[in-house]
Amino acid sequence: MTMQPATPTVLDSPLARKLSAFVRLSTDDLRVVSDLFRRRRNFGIGVEMIHQGQTDQTAFVLASGWACSYKILPGGTRQIVDFQVPGDFLGLRSVLFRTSDHNVEPITPVQASEVTQRDLLSAFAETPRLATAVLWAASRDEAMVVERLVDLGRRSATERMAHFLLELGARLRLVGMGERSGYSCPLSQYLLADALGLSAVHVNRVLRELREEGMLTFQKGRVTFDDYDALVELAAFDRAYLDHEGPLLT
Amino acid sequence: MTMQPATPTVLDSPLARKLSAFVRLSTDDLRVVSDLFRRRRNFGIGVEMIHQGQTDQTAFVLASGWACSYKILPGGTRQIVDFQVPGDFLGLRSVLFRTSDHNVEPITPVQASEVTQRDLLSAFAETPRLATAVLWAASRDEAMVVERLVDLGRRSATERMAHFLLELGARLRLVGMGERSGYSCPLSQYLLADALGLSAVHVNRVLRELREEGMLTFQKGRVTFDDYDALVELAAFDRAYLDHEGPLLT
Repeated sequence: MTMQPATPTVLDSPLARKLSAFVRLSTDDLRVVSDLFRRRRNFGIGVEMIHQGQTDQTAFVLASGWACSYKILPGGTRQIVDFQVPGDFLGLRSVLFRTSDHNVEPITPVQASEVTQRDLLSAFAETPRLATAVLWAASRDEAMVVERLVDLGRRSATERMAHFLLELGARLRLVGMGERSGYSCPLSQYLLADALGLSAVHVNRVLRELREEGMLTFQKGRVTFDDYDALVELAAFDRAYLDHEGPLLT
Repeated sequence: MTMQPATPTVLDSPLARKLSAFVRLSTDDLRVVSDLFRRRRNFGIGVEMIHQGQTDQTAFVLASGWACSYKILPGGTRQIVDFQVPGDFLGLRSVLFRTSDHNVEPITPVQASEVTQRDLLSAFAETPRLATAVLWAASRDEAMVVERLVDLGRRSATERMAHFLLELGARLRLVGMGERSGYSCPLSQYLLADALGLSAVHVNRVLRELREEGMLTFQKGRVTFDDYDALVELAAFDRAYLDHEGPLLT
């Protein structure tokens, strides 16, 4: 974990791009957002950035790399809640709650900026629009967890996989890290299985089926949408829950 | 749906009680919260208060009664996401998102106050502390959806039921509507089954088992904790994810 010098002029961060989907950010707003990126640190794969039960109220904004949030159950089993990509908050609940209710760890090397409760409060005091934007981002996170719930409750293995990889694609495109044709993806089949409530064997079979049907290919760390429209139809993927259609609050 | 006169002096609302678990609210803060309760309306059972796909950006704060949020899937099946009790927001995402990604309807007659995006923005501008408090409340909502996810992914039917009824008890106590011994609960076995991903027959059997083991009784619209501590142990219920331990932000 190393501290890096402040970069106060980074106005085009993934977080700024993401929040811009909700609120038109002025130069002043952007300066407040970039202030949140002051204390930037590097973390290696598997390092516990946030752990269940910790009480020191720290959150991070992910600047680069991928992370994973999960819960450990009393028996020791793990449930992955979601993956985080650049521009996402890690452990927003940790900064607001007395104790963190989940774990976060990098699945690639990451660079992330520490955000304290005091940082958030002073940012919100400077620009209340930013408060609604962060509330929007938290609501989008909740909407994604709801989709995981629908996955486990109501979607077939194939629908789950298609829906999940389409969602990831939409999230990555929002922050400039993917195209309609596909995206780089460091997730292992093991992580996918854990997140989607499937066995690794099942994940393997579903991905092979999707490839053979000409829908999508997930190989060598890259997801390629071979037939985007057919995939959207298969998964009944309605992007409304991601709310990416450009700033509502102008 | 009928309008009721403004009640600007209601400083002890369920919402104020709930937010007070996170932030010590000054009289000025309380006035801003009670302003959110200006436009109070009554809704009957089953009325669509918010519907999937609507674009008119309305949310509500529940003043009395119970509601239910759910998603309708393309095939027509329904997945209940959560139930709402007094002090809870209904459709907070609807007010921030272009289109609502879920439905909300009362399961008892409810009284609720309409909240617009403009109301939220002006409240946050008046008191940024309130913005963090609402963000806290949204985070608690997300934490509860995560627990539903863990329910479906990792908990047995009995553990799910125990965990869920303990959670509801904690939420109700926070707003003064329950005791350690139990609470009034209008949920049918059908609604419980839908929320917990069980069949109605299974719900019936699990509730009978819990009663016969002297853990809890759910009869005639009342949940009674016959052995609270044993139930907490059975469900491995760790309340940290609800963050009810008194104001962190003073």
